[in-house]
Amino acid sequence: MDTVLYGVAYYPEYMPYERLDQDIGLMQKAGISVVRIGESSWGLWEPEEGKFEFAWMDRVVDKLHAAGIKIILGTPTYSIPAWLYKKHPEIVVTRLGGQTLYYGLRQNTDLSHPTYRFYCERIIRRLLEHYKNNPDIIGYQIDNETSAAGAANPDVQIGFVNYLKARFKTTDQLNKVWGLNYWGQRLNDWTEVPVRDGIINPGWKLEWERYWQRMTTDFLAWQAAIVNEYKRADQFVTHDFAGPPRSEVNEWDVSKSLDIVAANPYHGTQDEFDGETSSTVGDYVRSLKQSNYLITETNAEAIGWNSKDQMPPYDGQLRLDVYTHVASGANMVEYWHWHSIHYGQETYWKGVLGHDLEPGRAYREVSRTAHELQRIGPEIVNTQRKNQVAILYSNDSLYGINFMKFSDRVDYNTIRRQMYATLYRANIGVDYLLPESTNFSDYKVIVVPPLYVASDALLKRVAEYVNNGGHLVMAFKSGFCNENSTVRWEMAPGPLREAAGFHYQEFSNLRQPLALSGDPFHAGAENKVSDWAEMIIPDTAKPLAFYDHPFFRKYPAITRNQYGKGTLTYEGTVLSDKLQDQVLLGVLQDAGLTGPDQSLPARVRVKHGMNRKGKRLHYYFNYSGDPESFTYAYGAGTDLLTQMPARPKQTITVKAWDAAIIEEN
Amino acid sequence: MDTVLYGVAYYPEYMPYERLDQDIGLMQKAGISVVRIGESSWGLWEPEEGKFEFAWMDRVVDKLHAAGIKIILGTPTYSIPAWLYKKHPEIVVTRLGGQTLYYGLRQNTDLSHPTYRFYCERIIRRLLEHYKNNPDIIGYQIDNETSAAGAANPDVQIGFVNYLKARFKTTDQLNKVWGLNYWGQRLNDWTEVPVRDGIINPGWKLEWERYWQRMTTDFLAWQAAIVNEYKRADQFVTHDFAGPPRSEVNEWDVSKSLDIVAANPYHGTQDEFDGETSSTVGDYVRSLKQSNYLITETNAEAIGWNSKDQMPPYDGQLRLDVYTHVASGANMVEYWHWHSIHYGQETYWKGVLGHDLEPGRAYREVSRTAHELQRIGPEIVNTQRKNQVAILYSNDSLYGINFMKFSDRVDYNTIRRQMYATLYRANIGVDYLLPESTNFSDYKVIVVPPLYVASDALLKRVAEYVNNGGHLVMAFKSGFCNENSTVRWEMAPGPLREAAGFHYQEFSNLRQPLALSGDPFHAGAENKVSDWAEMIIPDTAKPLAFYDHPFFRKYPAITRNQYGKGTLTYEGTVLSDKLQDQVLLGVLQDAGLTGPDQSLPARVRVKHGMNRKGKRLHYYFNYSGDPESFTYAYGAGTDLLTQMPARPKQTITVKAWDAAIIEEN
Amino acid sequence: MDTVLYGVAYYPEYMPYERLDQDIGLMQKAGISVVRIGESSWGLWEPEEGKFEFAWMDRVVDKLHAAGIKIILGTPTYSIPAWLYKKHPEIVVTRLGGQTLYYGLRQNTDLSHPTYRFYCERIIRRLLEHYKNNPDIIGYQIDNETSAAGAANPDVQIGFVNYLKARFKTTDQLNKVWGLNYWGQRLNDWTEVPVRDGIINPGWKLEWERYWQRMTTDFLAWQAAIVNEYKRADQFVTHDFAGPPRSEVNEWDVSKSLDIVAANPYHGTQDEFDGETSSTVGDYVRSLKQSNYLITETNAEAIGWNSKDQMPPYDGQLRLDVYTHVASGANMVEYWHWHSIHYGQETYWKGVLGHDLEPGRAYREVSRTAHELQRIGPEIVNTQRKNQVAILYSNDSLYGINFMKFSDRVDYNTIRRQMYATLYRANIGVDYLLPESTNFSDYKVIVVPPLYVASDALLKRVAEYVNNGGHLVMAFKSGFCNENSTVRWEMAPGPLREAAGFHYQEFSNLRQPLALSGDPFHAGAENKVSDWAEMIIPDTAKPLAFYDHPFFRKYPAITRNQYGKGTLTYEGTVLSDKLQDQVLLGVLQDAGLTGPDQSLPARVRVKHGMNRKGKRLHYYFNYSGDPESFTYAYGAGTDLLTQMPARPKQTITVKAWDAAIIEEN
Repeated sequence: MDTVLYGVAYYPEYMPYERLDQDIGLMQKAGISVVRIGESSWGLWEPEEGKFEFAWMDRVVDKLHAAGIKIILGTPTYSIPAWLYKKHPEIVVTRLGGQTLYYGLRQNTDLSHPTYRFYCERIIRRLLEHYKNNPDIIGYQIDNETSAAGAANPDVQIGFVNYLKARFKTTDQLNKVWGLNYWGQRLNDWTEVPVRDGIINPGWKLEWERYWQRMTTDFLAWQAAIVNEYKRADQFVTHDFAGPPRSEVNEWDVSKSLDIVAANPYHGTQDEFDGETSSTVGDYVRSLKQSNYLITETNAEAIGWNSKDQMPPYDGQLRLDVYTHVASGANMVEYWHWHSIHYGQETYWKGVLGHDLEPGRAYREVSRTAHELQRIGPEIVNTQRKNQVAILYSNDSLYGINFMKFSDRVDYNTIRRQMYATLYRANIGVDYLLPESTNFSDYKVIVVPPLYVASDALLKRVAEYVNNGGHLVMAFKSGFCNENSTVRWEMAPGPLREAAGFHYQEFSNLRQPLALSGDPFHAGAENKVSDWAEMIIPDTAKPLAFYDHPFFRKYPAITRNQYGKGTLTYEGTVLSDKLQDQVLLGVLQDAGLTGPDQSLPARVRVKHGMNRKGKRLHYYFNYSGDPESFTYAYGAGTDLLTQMPARPKQTITVKAWDAAIIEEN
Repeated sequence: MDTVLYGVAYYPEYMPYERLDQDIGLMQKAGISVVRIGESSWGLWEPEEGKFEFAWMDRVVDKLHAAGIKIILGTPTYSIPAWLYKKHPEIVVTRLGGQTLYYGLRQNTDLSHPTYRFYCERIIRRLLEHYKNNPDIIGYQIDNETSAAGAANPDVQIGFVNYLKARFKTTDQLNKVWGLNYWGQRLNDWTEVPVRDGIINPGWKLEWERYWQRMTTDFLAWQAAIVNEYKRADQFVTHDFAGPPRSEVNEWDVSKSLDIVAANPYHGTQDEFDGETSSTVGDYVRSLKQSNYLITETNAEAIGWNSKDQMPPYDGQLRLDVYTHVASGANMVEYWHWHSIHYGQETYWKGVLGHDLEPGRAYREVSRTAHELQRIGPEIVNTQRKNQVAILYSNDSLYGINFMKFSDRVDYNTIRRQMYATLYRANIGVDYLLPESTNFSDYKVIVVPPLYVASDALLKRVAEYVNNGGHLVMAFKSGFCNENSTVRWEMAPGPLREAAGFHYQEFSNLRQPLALSGDPFHAGAENKVSDWAEMIIPDTAKPLAFYDHPFFRKYPAITRNQYGKGTLTYEGTVLSDKLQDQVLLGVLQDAGLTGPDQSLPARVRVKHGMNRKGKRLHYYFNYSGDPESFTYAYGAGTDLLTQMPARPKQTITVKAWDAAIIEEN
Repeated sequence: MDTVLYGVAYYPEYMPYERLDQDIGLMQKAGISVVRIGESSWGLWEPEEGKFEFAWMDRVVDKLHAAGIKIILGTPTYSIPAWLYKKHPEIVVTRLGGQTLYYGLRQNTDLSHPTYRFYCERIIRRLLEHYKNNPDIIGYQIDNETSAAGAANPDVQIGFVNYLKARFKTTDQLNKVWGLNYWGQRLNDWTEVPVRDGIINPGWKLEWERYWQRMTTDFLAWQAAIVNEYKRADQFVTHDFAGPPRSEVNEWDVSKSLDIVAANPYHGTQDEFDGETSSTVGDYVRSLKQSNYLITETNAEAIGWNSKDQMPPYDGQLRLDVYTHVASGANMVEYWHWHSIHYGQETYWKGVLGHDLEPGRAYREVSRTAHELQRIGPEIVNTQRKNQVAILYSNDSLYGINFMKFSDRVDYNTIRRQMYATLYRANIGVDYLLPESTNFSDYKVIVVPPLYVASDALLKRVAEYVNNGGHLVMAFKSGFCNENSTVRWEMAPGPLREAAGFHYQEFSNLRQPLALSGDPFHAGAENKVSDWAEMIIPDTAKPLAFYDHPFFRKYPAITRNQYGKGTLTYEGTVLSDKLQDQVLLGVLQDAGLTGPDQSLPARVRVKHGMNRKGKRLHYYFNYSGDPESFTYAYGAGTDLLTQMPARPKQTITVKAWDAAIIEEN
């Protein structure tokens, strides 16, 4: 792409009166360059079974063409028409426990149901046939924020058994892998597999989650294949992930079917706006294909399915968020959506235009940003990141831990987010790794939230990474279970024992937080660990901290082991944010990854990248309501926003909720 | 009526042993003048299908006659016999989501089910035929605390579609009014209307609520019509509303079928007794037909469906509550009920007699009050109120806001109750207005809780009221939606803009309470607004207060607009109780509605009225455990209770939990 | 029994690899003398319908024989095989409200279902036939922690009606007993009895609970009868009660079918370990047959169905718990279980061996204890208790109160546990009495939690106990209802009035705790009563305390009545723990039951008994992490653990989490 695309989702069909010219005129005036259309309106594309109508959209497309606005066309399968529900109520989701959903909400269909697939395919093909030659359509979005939606319909139960057959071959293998001798529940043959509803076996539950993920992957791969039959070479297929990483979806697998990945991050605003949500979502989706990506939806004004969380952004926050995305690698930012809706569930999920449909504060800021992008978009599009630190994300571990929670307060994501937030606040650029990733060696430091569920092979790769000189920071419970969420029957932490340099036989919850003896990390009032304590017995590891407790005092809370050329730092307990900061920053420092970025003011963030011309970009963001000043620590260049020169060691001041984007000369 | 009726609901059929003579003797001795009978005992009236028995009640009626006690006879349709459930389980309510109720609870039938109606009609007619000539029956109560009980049975779904056809004519009109293009859910014809269960569209949900209300209205109108075929001219038809206003019921419409309105208010006791519940219910039901009313049920002793809220009144509270009701316009007070029950759900909903069935503390206080009423009843019956202030109550707005809540802490009723409580504590007599009311001009001040759902016509009448010299105080969100709970697509507050003198395009929740800059209402620690803030831009209105916040400071929190001959004071946010006090009292003062009543001791309330002889009555109530003194500020008269003279400027002392009722000479 | 049995539940069939010799070798080395096997593995005993396999267990049994380890064999009926669910899903529980359970969890079958019974009987008989001659099997456990599991399947509804017919003869009697005239719900014949699901009548609900209890009683009696056909004279039949008293089960009735009672108490560990759970369970089950008992399951290491409550015991706690049980009368202690499981719901319910299957901390402590028991077991087995104080436990009252709760904070068990804890902390040995018990006169003091539901006959026996010289302490609500949970229609407290020496007509909840006037029990900050206050009017009783409140001050909160030769102390309100202490200890002192045991250090407990040789035993337990010293107050003897002599008046020091067991000479 030649510049950053900037636009909105547009639903002219929702307007309470005819105002198409007015809308497109306002878009054009604001400088909007792209709209997404069509994904929500199956009932208009096919108002009656087999009767297709395109004229209503043709006029929209024509006028967008005239206005020079590009189009992303969505396949409209995520919300079925009323006539389809009337004819085939069986395609709607039946949940575990037997509750069948009703018509009313979208995203309520069984993705694997053949009847649903039949109707999907027909509307997709008719739509594509009609629009495939349109020159303004730059790409297709397939479905919308797809997930299996908890479908446990009979065909899903059958599909799951077939999946088990393919994966495990025999029920004897299942009996073994899931330990079905327990409570005498072994299976003689595939007809005895009971429905998932009452199952409490962790291995079984994990496999079911994987099957749900596969339903989504398969459904989107199937849609992508259909669209690819019609797609031109200059067009792309994308899908918009809802708030990834989302445990219900295997974004890694889905991405294989996509030309470019898109995401719909919605972020906190007003005093809760700090760029972290946009950054973590961006870091994750950028890592899926190790490539730039699209933002298909994000906050335009206040959002919410009721009016309890209406938080319109302060002045400057919308624009600041756009550059936050671009710095993370986004090549497009689209708002959801152009105009606020007067009816329905999303009445309070507001658009660039409010309910009065007249330009307001949000429109003015969008317009300012759009015009700025017209100038600087070509300089910042396709920003390339090169990070030294990665987080290893394991969806299986998230589920495995959830099935057997260790705390009501803390879970897998709590730790992952704490680790990310620590790095984010410290201005350390981060990529994500997944168990499938093969590029561990690209990183000097890998940070590992509780890797509770992992195959021997994955653990071996983790250990090798350390052995080869990597610095790994790993949380408790890692290595505890194999890939079937079965606890290992060797001494914990299983295959990690040599790299970790310790073993343990027991662990305990902590009813109350404990201090680390002697406050070794100078955390003061935050010298607190909690919730979980592994009773670690070092083999070769060095204890970094002990519990201040008459019984647990003999067990180290944090250890570090030199293993081969690298180090493995292990957290056997839940750390306070301050302790996590200190532990992680210590490792980063040892790895030589700290510098001037760690001395910026508390609410200033910096991101670095390279543009298409090979020039280095330094994005400084002020996520606060006051101006902030700091010393510029990189090469001479120009602030693209103000067009002022930036010299090394110069003091730069960024206004409230504003940014500086320095392009080195 | 010639005097205030005073009595109990009486269930001789619940007694564990024969004691009819004993009971009626005790009633007679206490001075009880009326009982309600029969409404709970269908299974005794018709013990087997088509077999009717009246003898068991005839002897009760005969003995009541002998004792000179009047009778209100209830139609026994709210609790069906076991044989009817066995034969027709389909008449029992199926809730949204598919849960079908079981036998056990009362009020669990589908009011519109023809089978239920068939059996209801037969028992009503047989009962009326048997008792229609009884001279002691002064009136009939139809059913009991009726509501649609969440019935979503198939016939209700069908009835709703028929109702929609009648109201909206075409599905195209529905598509437009409810915005069904949203998510592509438009309807081609009436057969495509899905069941209500999964619907999340606010307009649809509101219409369904209206249909439920109509089911109750229709059912009671149908019962009233049957009873009217038998009723004598000296008899009335009434229905006992449960704790009105009750959002599930349209009391305004139901009242059209009634000769006199009745209500069942249950109030806080002990330290929670302050007369407010009895007063607000009274003010509401008095406003329905602008007429006096009956109290068919209220606390005799402790109440509750378990023993967690057993709070028997302190000495004096029962009697004080009776005069509270009479002062509000009640012409009858009946307790629920004569004797405590030893079995069943209401074991702890105690009667005038406790479980031992011997006279106790409650019986003695009832007896005292009854004998007092024999003396002063004729002086205070039919007390007429003439109030200058009204609250505009909108049930539609309550629902519209609930569908899209703006807070977990505050809702429509929170604001309505705050406004009522402010006026109540300030001793300002209040009527209720409903959207159907045509007498806005009777009032100097109208107070409007969030009028979120309102037709253009209603908003125009509101504006005209101001234009003609009225003083209106209105809460946020008013004017936001039309009568279909659809947000208006003109600048907010829509048709109110000129009268309100401002507009706004945005609004925000407040995560934390904010102060008003400079504490303009001298509220000190209570200078707090919260939850919601409309970003008001004055046209002609004068700001009365601004937010103390860096971003919101530019928007006024409270405004006042002179419009025509009147003023419209607008609260764009949720006020603390103290701020609401100050704002409302300021408007009342400006309207010339304040005086000596606002200087009474904190726990003393006063109400004014006129008796049948045209004499002015001043009721002073001491809702506290200590004696209270104040200066009497009205014309010379006599305290009906003590028979002591009352002179202007005289100091009157009212004992703990006692009253003074001054009749002017 | 000649010594204390000590062992584990053992599931070789759950092991992830073959290690039978290794396991039994480790058991033997540790000194384990008994294992429980087989109760969880129906699916292995009968892997396909009608195909039975014993070989897998025969080799286990053989090796246990070789190792000299005794066996308890369980009937495996509590967890059905997958093939049985596939063939007969109808035997799985359908709950009230219609929810049918799924396969996955154990203990999910309808105990009264004939199909389930058919399959149960076949597997039991085949198992018994196979193993009946085995010399190592010392006894049989029937089923496992059985309850009716909320089954409301059609056959249960039918069974309940048949039960009602047998108990009440006519529906007219039901109409009377349950007050079905209420809401006109009387029944004409047995076909009109509606299903239980919607019933809210307390009498009906209580009878249903009794029927559920009877289902369990009948099922276990039926199993016991089958086993008795095969059982040798040297073998016993037992059943393991889960955490008794358990309201769903009538342990008194079940025990009639058992030779010896067993229980599965799981206790708090770490800082929550104080011996109370083990003691209260022991005191209860010992009282069922007034005999020694078995502990079939208790904590080996950490427990939990997730990893939120993993609290491995501190060093010493496992051993200390064993002696706690023996002192209470246990003749066996078995852990659940030998090895931690790697799959399934109980992954974190850990065994003597952890997941690594290697000896660890728990194994070492078990081994120490086992070897100690080999030495001292014969001295302490069959410890006989002789207590002077009993608690009267009424399951009916627990339900009756729950149906009509008087508090969200306090219920029947809260009071029962408070009373037990008071006695436990005061080192007063306690037995339990049930309404069926006939030995009231064995006790000097009987303590009575709210005896809300009780027949006239039971209340008469209570009164006679006092009349004959007993000291009774009784909580509020006692005597309020008859055996059908129907409130009595005589003056409260009904048949207890004369013995209690007061009456009351009213009662009230207390919204806020109140003080007792003048702090008569010197409770200081804990001088607080709460939740409930009966408005007691003394006849002959003496008030011990009054409420400090303007209204309630006239009613005594606590009374004592001299009645015949005894006293009845009555608590008309909920006492703080400190007040309960003072009231109970006062009564004990008056009864001459206090002495040196009440002066021990706060965390030291003592229990007394007599061994088989007629020697007195004094068990001192230190439930704390510090050494504790005290003066020995009994006859000269020897500490069995240390083999040190103990002289009267000598100071004994017990180490942290340790015990002294003095056998008098």
